[in-house]
Amino acid sequence: MAFDFRITHIDGRARRGLLKTPHGEVQTPAFLPVGTQGAVKGITHRDLEGLGTEILLANTYHLYLRPGSDAIARRGGLHRFIGWLRPILTDSGGYQVFSLAARRSIDEEGAHFKSHLDGSSHLLTPEKAVDIQAQLGSDIAMVLDECLAYPADVEAARTSMERTLRWAGRSRDRFHSLNTSANRVTVTNPGQAQFGIVQGGVHPGLREMSARQTVAIGFEAFAIGGLSVGEPVDVMYDIVGHTTTFLPNDRLRYLMGTGTPGDLVESVARGIDLFDCVLPTRNARNGQLFTSEGRLNIKNARYAEDDRPPDPACTCYTCRTASRAYLRHLFLAGEINAATLNTLHNLNFYLDTMRRIREAIAFGRFESFRLAFHQSFSRRPTDS
Amino acid sequence: MAFDFRITHIDGRARRGLLKTPHGEVQTPAFLPVGTQGAVKGITHRDLEGLGTEILLANTYHLYLRPGSDAIARRGGLHRFIGWLRPILTDSGGYQVFSLAARRSIDEEGAHFKSHLDGSSHLLTPEKAVDIQAQLGSDIAMVLDECLAYPADVEAARTSMERTLRWAGRSRDRFHSLNTSANRVTVTNPGQAQFGIVQGGVHPGLREMSARQTVAIGFEAFAIGGLSVGEPVDVMYDIVGHTTTFLPNDRLRYLMGTGTPGDLVESVARGIDLFDCVLPTRNARNGQLFTSEGRLNIKNARYAEDDRPPDPACTCYTCRTASRAYLRHLFLAGEINAATLNTLHNLNFYLDTMRRIREAIAFGRFESFRLAFHQSFSRRPTDS
Repeated sequence: MAFDFRITHIDGRARRGLLKTPHGEVQTPAFLPVGTQGAVKGITHRDLEGLGTEILLANTYHLYLRPGSDAIARRGGLHRFIGWLRPILTDSGGYQVFSLAARRSIDEEGAHFKSHLDGSSHLLTPEKAVDIQAQLGSDIAMVLDECLAYPADVEAARTSMERTLRWAGRSRDRFHSLNTSANRVTVTNPGQAQFGIVQGGVHPGLREMSARQTVAIGFEAFAIGGLSVGEPVDVMYDIVGHTTTFLPNDRLRYLMGTGTPGDLVESVARGIDLFDCVLPTRNARNGQLFTSEGRLNIKNARYAEDDRPPDPACTCYTCRTASRAYLRHLFLAGEINAATLNTLHNLNFYLDTMRRIREAIAFGRFESFRLAFHQSFSRRPTDS
Repeated sequence: MAFDFRITHIDGRARRGLLKTPHGEVQTPAFLPVGTQGAVKGITHRDLEGLGTEILLANTYHLYLRPGSDAIARRGGLHRFIGWLRPILTDSGGYQVFSLAARRSIDEEGAHFKSHLDGSSHLLTPEKAVDIQAQLGSDIAMVLDECLAYPADVEAARTSMERTLRWAGRSRDRFHSLNTSANRVTVTNPGQAQFGIVQGGVHPGLREMSARQTVAIGFEAFAIGGLSVGEPVDVMYDIVGHTTTFLPNDRLRYLMGTGTPGDLVESVARGIDLFDCVLPTRNARNGQLFTSEGRLNIKNARYAEDDRPPDPACTCYTCRTASRAYLRHLFLAGEINAATLNTLHNLNFYLDTMRRIREAIAFGRFESFRLAFHQSFSRRPTDS
């Protein structure tokens, strides 16, 4: 099965659709749990499937350094190596180079950096990012983009955005040559698609320019990068709503690295189809649960003798079987199950939110869902 | 349902039986996964049930200190607090006082110690150990015994054993008064049984004396304590085989804190019905897997590109879905799933070994099973 995306329902600017990949279908709008190193921290693939996860994100930077993309290619690609046979999206590795690597420097060629694991030197070019992801064999590969720090003035943002555009062109050229006889890279998933990334900081004019020129290069779909990096949430929503107007209606739109449950709802309202974020999994490990009544910090003393489930409206395994008192005990005792049970619940909350979004769009009731969601979830948090 | 134990098959000295408790039945010989703080490290109750776990062990010392036996009693007992509705056995807390607590001192009254968590002072008497376990409401409570360090000469072992006997008498008296009107302790499981513990170090005469006098006090069943503390394995087997001859044939026999898979088989051959040990779970977290071909250290470089399951003869979720290469990657990457997947496999190996033991006894083939097991499992370990 080749890459395909079809919109099945439209409600205002919100869209419901069906994404097809070589490893199966994904109903959109969709949220991707983050499996950084080939595993979602704290829960097994089986539990991910049980939650209805249709697509995972894996981090190219981490997998390239350990166990190495060559070794993964020799295993037949990432799906076979990790035993996850449904769709996978990989990022380019750029974001982690900018945020994790030691002694990084960027020039026109690419990003020079030293591994945060062993200090070894590496050069990540747009072409190399394409090659690594070809070895991994993800269903969706992302182009290497330059990740600008926030805030950046318009000139710095323009310079960076223009480099990202040149890198996008090089990335697409390399991608087109992957399945040719001249290519020496092991391609473990010939049906892989490649997404371009729109940059431009918080500057509407740059976002428009980046979107138009990225679309002109031609990719299977388009992502919005460089948001959720510290800008006010209203600015992010405005940039998302502005940028999507310059993206083709029939192509999937992916908002990278976002966000809170409210961000998902607001971005769907502005035409986004795909999300990924570490928030549900990372916060779970820190004891913060997302519930239908807002956020809940399980370590608070008030829960020491609270026999209620974390979210009375939730039907996940955690809420069916564990009380707040027990979850608090597990967290304070440093038990691994605290991470597992909290992660199960938070991912269920995110995936269930996406299910309810899709249903609302299908029934033409997205606006009333959106209002009700904010009234319920975004009420004053109980204790965060 | 009250406590009951019936032997259904005998094969040499090995016995197959059925243990009944207020929270359900347990087929014996049985192995108890260790849920120290009310959770087995790395896997959920659901996965434990999926592995066929019929009974758990929980540590009184840990639960008494955190979250506290009073709080657990207010939750309705340990089963309800942790959401595990099958049988639970609790130890007395004595072993952890001797091994974990700071500044402990023992006298006739009991064990004075300071919490390893916050330095608070506590006194664990035989009566207090009974009371705490009554609050926890385990199906099987253990008496407080004195845990002697190995090696101990015969006089030290005798002195300690005699104190343990006096404590056993006090424990039984307290236990008998729990369900009376004079008792002020919350009893969350009125059908709880109490096991006595035979001590006496590696001295056959003391073991006989301890067994006879512990039996004379009268308990629902009897445990052998003070082994697996550093003595040679042959000595342990001899003491087990010697001690069981002084225990009533119709009562369940529990060998505490043991052991390797080979230890289980050899102890069943000497008349033991119940085991607990942290070995499968702790070693899993350290990357050591028990397999039908011996022990396997998953972090070894030789597994970096090994696509085989950890144990080709195993049908557990880990062996069905994860390769040695992937498990090694997860371990080196510090992923939580490494602990989860390794623990799932190791517990499955232990529980499956017990299933095979029970089946062999039922068919009168225990001796041939025992030989075949040692030839397969105890061959020279591949890499440990």
